[in-house]
Amino acid sequence: MFGGDALAQMTKAAFVAATRASRKTTVLASCQHIDFKHRITVGSIIELVARIVRTGRSSTTVEVELWSEDLMDGRQTLTARGAFIMVAVDRDNRPVPAFAA
Amino acid sequence: MFGGDALAQMTKAAFVAATRASRKTTVLASCQHIDFKHRITVGSIIELVARIVRTGRSSTTVEVELWSEDLMDGRQTLTARGAFIMVAVDRDNRPVPAFAA
Amino acid sequence: MFGGDALAQMTKAAFVAATRASRKTTVLASCQHIDFKHRITVGSIIELVARIVRTGRSSTTVEVELWSEDLMDGRQTLTARGAFIMVAVDRDNRPVPAFAA
Amino acid sequence: MFGGDALAQMTKAAFVAATRASRKTTVLASCQHIDFKHRITVGSIIELVARIVRTGRSSTTVEVELWSEDLMDGRQTLTARGAFIMVAVDRDNRPVPAFAA
Amino acid sequence: MFGGDALAQMTKAAFVAATRASRKTTVLASCQHIDFKHRITVGSIIELVARIVRTGRSSTTVEVELWSEDLMDGRQTLTARGAFIMVAVDRDNRPVPAFAA
Amino acid sequence: MFGGDALAQMTKAAFVAATRASRKTTVLASCQHIDFKHRITVGSIIELVARIVRTGRSSTTVEVELWSEDLMDGRQTLTARGAFIMVAVDRDNRPVPAFAA
Repeated sequence: MFGGDALAQMTKAAFVAATRASRKTTVLASCQHIDFKHRITVGSIIELVARIVRTGRSSTTVEVELWSEDLMDGRQTLTARGAFIMVAVDRDNRPVPAFAA
Repeated sequence: MFGGDALAQMTKAAFVAATRASRKTTVLASCQHIDFKHRITVGSIIELVARIVRTGRSSTTVEVELWSEDLMDGRQTLTARGAFIMVAVDRDNRPVPAFAA
Repeated sequence: MFGGDALAQMTKAAFVAATRASRKTTVLASCQHIDFKHRITVGSIIELVARIVRTGRSSTTVEVELWSEDLMDGRQTLTARGAFIMVAVDRDNRPVPAFAA
Repeated sequence: MFGGDALAQMTKAAFVAATRASRKTTVLASCQHIDFKHRITVGSIIELVARIVRTGRSSTTVEVELWSEDLMDGRQTLTARGAFIMVAVDRDNRPVPAFAA
Repeated sequence: MFGGDALAQMTKAAFVAATRASRKTTVLASCQHIDFKHRITVGSIIELVARIVRTGRSSTTVEVELWSEDLMDGRQTLTARGAFIMVAVDRDNRPVPAFAA
Repeated sequence: MFGGDALAQMTKAAFVAATRASRKTTVLASCQHIDFKHRITVGSIIELVARIVRTGRSSTTVEVELWSEDLMDGRQTLTARGAFIMVAVDRDNRPVPAFAA
């Protein structure tokens, strides 16, 4: 799996987690310190684990882990981890409050 | 354009720049401080600008800018910027020297 | 979401469940009585729930539910449900034992 | 060809056949007893044959066959067969009459 | 439908027709005078008609028509037409005889 | 890379060049004499070079070259070349003036 596709999947997981927490439309504002430890081999499935680690007025910081599992032997490996900052926005893409201060 | 797709495109630009510099297969090792300043609207094209900012023994650090251009008026906007660290690897995905020390 | 894409996603969930249970390569042998109750609207995410309901010598029967969740209000709806029979196969696509008789 | 992709293609063929018969928008209501007899190998093309086997007030039952043809020797194989029930709907996804009773 | 996607579909039809005629692997050598008369609107299906108009020693000239059909009223429109020259090749991509001279 | 995908990429390059020149929406009207000289091998990147060679009242003729570059040795090869005629259109797909006569 190409690194760019992994990043795209991790961003989707961050988007779902932040949107569920705020019930607002959220967009990616930045991502930080994403490390790729292992390559994903053919014949694996990936699992995404997203945890909300901080909420600001409009922003949600989501830590995302990407695990891969070898389908034949079940072995799971932490492949990548990083933090994504999502911001709740209105239709004109301006930040809106998402959480009580 | 969804943030995850933008990240995937930026990673491809970093991959091409690092592979051209080292003429080795490179993989994404980490990415850092990627900021998204503007959203990309429908009817724009994107342009990716990749610059090599540092080389180590196996690694190449590539700064990537994502510009969007409104096709109707030609206005260009810096949409995202970030650094990607690519590592030259062999067939078993182990780091190999890419540059003279 | 087009009905055909929903079927493709449900088949993937059946594939992962059957492959994890048998730790063999599995292929779709048949699917039965898949009902679509609701349409999936834009702005929803889908969740797939796969349960193994029967195992034969080579085959695994997987019941798959497709739930959709409105991202803005969190309401979840059972959208489709059906059974998929997966068969463990060798490299020449012939059935192989997957479970003790 | 992955089983899920084959199902998606068969659903498209059912959709076109039912929409042509009723000249209404149709959606997939259910599918039944789809059997996969052979795997599709690389270097084949697929051919979809759709036949309308029953029409109700809003529904059209379409039998779909998926044939694969080896491009090098021309040999054709019946790969999968199944029935798809399509229902004519209005913009709010409610069934509408499609055929005279 | 974007013009480039229409060209890609027409090339696929030419490939299938030429490969079926020669039972060799064929690749696109050139295409000529492809005219687009109408735009394809949303809610249409496309139909591709490929006719072999000339065969050389290694080459097959295929005329491809792209028809669109409005699914709601059944009206069919000739949308594009052009000629594609396909050449039979070996594994090293060198022309091989495909037809008796 | 399949010939049809190459044509689709070349059409996109023609679209961007013509749209930038006219700052109008443009659609593909015809393409002429596109020759494919070399096949694109795995592990190459492609580069598209588009030059405007003629402008009419509504039309822009764009010559597009497709170069491939072997990422490992940097060797560049002219793979395909052809001319695309793009026409500026309004929302109803009728030609509109794009350039001073």
